[in-house]
Amino acid sequence: MTATSRPGRPVLLGQNQYGKAENRVVRITRDGDTHRIKDLNVSVALSGDMDDVHYSGSNANVLPTDTTKNTVYAFAKEYGIESAEQFGIHLARHFVTSQEPIHRARIRIEEYAWERIAASDANSRFIGADEVRHSFVRKGQETRLTQITYDGESWEVVSGLKDLVVMNSTNSEFWGYVKDRYTTLREAYDRILATEVSGRWRFNWTGDEQKAPNWEKSYEQARKHMLQAFAETYSLSLQQTLYQMGARIINHRAEIDEVRFSLPNKHHFLVDLEPFGLKNDNEVYFAADRPYGLIEATVLRDGAEARIPADLTNL
Amino acid sequence: MTATSRPGRPVLLGQNQYGKAENRVVRITRDGDTHRIKDLNVSVALSGDMDDVHYSGSNANVLPTDTTKNTVYAFAKEYGIESAEQFGIHLARHFVTSQEPIHRARIRIEEYAWERIAASDANSRFIGADEVRHSFVRKGQETRLTQITYDGESWEVVSGLKDLVVMNSTNSEFWGYVKDRYTTLREAYDRILATEVSGRWRFNWTGDEQKAPNWEKSYEQARKHMLQAFAETYSLSLQQTLYQMGARIINHRAEIDEVRFSLPNKHHFLVDLEPFGLKNDNEVYFAADRPYGLIEATVLRDGAEARIPADLTNL
Amino acid sequence: MTATSRPGRPVLLGQNQYGKAENRVVRITRDGDTHRIKDLNVSVALSGDMDDVHYSGSNANVLPTDTTKNTVYAFAKEYGIESAEQFGIHLARHFVTSQEPIHRARIRIEEYAWERIAASDANSRFIGADEVRHSFVRKGQETRLTQITYDGESWEVVSGLKDLVVMNSTNSEFWGYVKDRYTTLREAYDRILATEVSGRWRFNWTGDEQKAPNWEKSYEQARKHMLQAFAETYSLSLQQTLYQMGARIINHRAEIDEVRFSLPNKHHFLVDLEPFGLKNDNEVYFAADRPYGLIEATVLRDGAEARIPADLTNL
Amino acid sequence: MTATSRPGRPVLLGQNQYGKAENRVVRITRDGDTHRIKDLNVSVALSGDMDDVHYSGSNANVLPTDTTKNTVYAFAKEYGIESAEQFGIHLARHFVTSQEPIHRARIRIEEYAWERIAASDANSRFIGADEVRHSFVRKGQETRLTQITYDGESWEVVSGLKDLVVMNSTNSEFWGYVKDRYTTLREAYDRILATEVSGRWRFNWTGDEQKAPNWEKSYEQARKHMLQAFAETYSLSLQQTLYQMGARIINHRAEIDEVRFSLPNKHHFLVDLEPFGLKNDNEVYFAADRPYGLIEATVLRDGAEARIPADLTNL
Repeated sequence: MTATSRPGRPVLLGQNQYGKAENRVVRITRDGDTHRIKDLNVSVALSGDMDDVHYSGSNANVLPTDTTKNTVYAFAKEYGIESAEQFGIHLARHFVTSQEPIHRARIRIEEYAWERIAASDANSRFIGADEVRHSFVRKGQETRLTQITYDGESWEVVSGLKDLVVMNSTNSEFWGYVKDRYTTLREAYDRILATEVSGRWRFNWTGDEQKAPNWEKSYEQARKHMLQAFAETYSLSLQQTLYQMGARIINHRAEIDEVRFSLPNKHHFLVDLEPFGLKNDNEVYFAADRPYGLIEATVLRDGAEARIPADLTNL
Repeated sequence: MTATSRPGRPVLLGQNQYGKAENRVVRITRDGDTHRIKDLNVSVALSGDMDDVHYSGSNANVLPTDTTKNTVYAFAKEYGIESAEQFGIHLARHFVTSQEPIHRARIRIEEYAWERIAASDANSRFIGADEVRHSFVRKGQETRLTQITYDGESWEVVSGLKDLVVMNSTNSEFWGYVKDRYTTLREAYDRILATEVSGRWRFNWTGDEQKAPNWEKSYEQARKHMLQAFAETYSLSLQQTLYQMGARIINHRAEIDEVRFSLPNKHHFLVDLEPFGLKNDNEVYFAADRPYGLIEATVLRDGAEARIPADLTNL
Repeated sequence: MTATSRPGRPVLLGQNQYGKAENRVVRITRDGDTHRIKDLNVSVALSGDMDDVHYSGSNANVLPTDTTKNTVYAFAKEYGIESAEQFGIHLARHFVTSQEPIHRARIRIEEYAWERIAASDANSRFIGADEVRHSFVRKGQETRLTQITYDGESWEVVSGLKDLVVMNSTNSEFWGYVKDRYTTLREAYDRILATEVSGRWRFNWTGDEQKAPNWEKSYEQARKHMLQAFAETYSLSLQQTLYQMGARIINHRAEIDEVRFSLPNKHHFLVDLEPFGLKNDNEVYFAADRPYGLIEATVLRDGAEARIPADLTNL
Repeated sequence: MTATSRPGRPVLLGQNQYGKAENRVVRITRDGDTHRIKDLNVSVALSGDMDDVHYSGSNANVLPTDTTKNTVYAFAKEYGIESAEQFGIHLARHFVTSQEPIHRARIRIEEYAWERIAASDANSRFIGADEVRHSFVRKGQETRLTQITYDGESWEVVSGLKDLVVMNSTNSEFWGYVKDRYTTLREAYDRILATEVSGRWRFNWTGDEQKAPNWEKSYEQARKHMLQAFAETYSLSLQQTLYQMGARIINHRAEIDEVRFSLPNKHHFLVDLEPFGLKNDNEVYFAADRPYGLIEATVLRDGAEARIPADLTNL
């Protein structure tokens, strides 16, 4: 082997973490003939006294990533999956409290929603229900997200979503902006406003002594308020719409102190039909892929600390 | 330039086609304050007297792909988009009848569905409606597909969908199969059956003298029957379920003569929890990515000709 | 269970096939300290006497897809992987000859190429070689493809590649085309020509009595001739370039009778810099995503039959 | 419009930024017949006095994202693209110094490498060169990355790469780790070590008064040292290999103070061939997709500050 730098040499180890990413777990719960599904993608990241494994390769402090995978599946059986948040809390607590060298755990979860398949008339008479109790179709709309972080003392829970595409076909303008030598854009007084929402919201629940939020209801309500703010804001800029989406969540959900959005402006360009002798009265648009405007901001309850990082990660 | 083969040399041109792929067109229709959206991805492929452009580079018979793009947008204005099928029929007819060298047009369309955003209570009182009339969220479930082919005389319309993920959490078995030297699989008497449906169905409408189907209703009904057959079949093999899905469509929809499915068996493996002292009573599954069983078949009305190709293309 | 259609009812089964798709197999061969890698993604599709499994769910004729997966891995050990083509031939022959109900096997393989990592000076003295003999970096350029089909009597081998992006920054023109009411494109006398090559070529080897090609050399040479034809053709249309690419392969490789390409015209639009007082002398381009021209054609040895399907599949 | 929260209410704006993402610019430079390509994907993010546009929708301080796109293309002409880093520095300086409300610019760039196509013998005699001077094939290996941040006073440049897949087929072990109730993994004394490198390195160049690094040479050398460290480290853990990769860069490149890697452990599982009567002597592996171990760490020059964020972003 070649000579390489070793402890004592002037190269140090900084922040580090390890774990098993993207454990796909599906949990079925049976209530008689009626089945329920929780479908998650769980990623575990652990950190603590891990210098040696980097410097010398000693694994004496390393709980294998394979074991963290096994724990995800075992806990799905032992504790069930009441909500992604609650499941992540179980996991994070376990790793930090059961392994002395592990000081911090971060659990990230994606959740995919399913809805029931309607029964045919013949079958609904047969089974006495309008939906087949063990048959599902993936909803396919947004991917729900949560991230739980625990350092043995306090909790941070950030939930949210990605992949939710929305559009207002009117009530959006863009004018009055700075013009410089490189500006060619024309002002718009009635444009399509469309984006693919990536949003995260941070809960103010931080400790076991506080009552935890109702995670499922909180998600459903935050999503609803965000969508309504998008739909009901007469927009002079995508930034204004973003702020309203965040403010609506904070004003309606006491358990949430901070919201961050990353909103690509999915440009819909009005097609110039004049060369063909046609007038395009805001009817026909070209939906462009790249480039896209990208608007990102944090909206905060007054007095709250900003903790969601500027760059939202994909998972 | 280097010497290259020319006509006269023994290398011939075979099947060829050209066009503009993936024209993203969004069409807004206004009924007072109420807006409607059609959101399509349109691909044009043309063929005919095109030997010269391949042999010598002469473009004398070539309508540019850029022109076909313009035509998509212009027709969205001139004719509107009643259904993807009807829109594709307009386009195919135009290219074949307006350009003498073009003998055949194939239009492929992907359609993305949208649903309305519910209004907040305050706003629904204000606007007098439960939904914001110009605000939409992309449904995000399946991608609807159609392919229209026209040779100047007869039509072929094949519609369908992709990306629709479905699951039965019980009522699926797999046993009684062939065992050879390489077989290690254990028989299953209660397994999860999950797949991502890619399906195509061919209409028996072939000519302008026949009454065309109601394309929108046909899609909605074919999708419904297919989902119900998936849900209601007690499955001894994915092949059996596939056949039932196709047969249900053909039995209920007189306008459809042929159905083909490509169904990846999205394996959900029961996790072995015994090493942890736990019993997995069909509760905790690992959802695997690759490899996957892949089941493909055509289901036909008796007497109908099989014309959908064995390999379904992605678009 | 609900009533469903059964044999006797007028819904018939058409073409069908099944198997295990995307078996990722990595085979290491050791020649002393020097390791070699073959890295494949193998998909198996089988067909034959399979009516019963569709109609009644009887698996009596079904070799499980799990067994076909096992066979891929076992054969990688027993026979090694000399070339993707040779490996696919072993597999296809096995399935058809060992299972009476299986009449036809189609093996599709993707291959990912690797190259060795150069040793540092210190280490190359230590190991006596310029490259580390067990260390590799994935080449990452094209994905090599092959498809082997066997019906118990004759073979069809179609090889090729996808994902190979090429560009000529000059020597490409486009003019003299048809202009209709919807044409706005301006003629171009010096444009960028770029495409992402998806190509397939069919071998005229069909039977065990013929000497099989040297599959590895054939691939390397076909790829080289194709690239050189792309580079050396002064292009008046992408169709012309496509024909030259195919003709060059057929003229140089006696073992290949038919070539098909699907070539997206990856548009590079000259950016209009005049509003900024700048002249764009074919220097600055916008690389567009969608839509794209799509040019597809088959090139054939005179007298050969065209058998590669018009729609190239992704795998 | 519905009532929405306004300034004065207790919801505040936090960190925010905006700009045009993914501007695809291709720059051709001609040296006689010899062309050179720079192929970039440029994303602009700006921040500063932007409260009003969020609270009220006033765009008085907003340079449109469309203008930032135009600037990318205009600068490609005016200044050329010597390196991605130098190009990003030009852009960042421009936005911060030319627009009073903009206090900070962050430019992210992806670069795609191209190599020349070899000429055929006939043509190389004709053109007097072994390579066609205007013909290129995309290298397709890693994507090169850089991020330039400027606040009007000091610079931060972080470069790196993603998508580089590497493998050692031996010289990797994993044993001596923690075992708990959920541990089933067996110790490994000769395993494949494979990963897809995502790495970032921070330069200690921060101000115009310092001599800037040779960006092109720095990239080439950092990449080389990183690959050699991967190949030449006898690995007892992926963490150890990661540390060596970072240390090798810092020890050899004085201009770099900090390196961070995110290394998915691309598991290659030895296939159990015993059921088939075969011995798998480290020859046949199954390459798994998910889940994967994920190892992330920062390596620092002694005394340097850690500034690269723990979560590497994709672009």
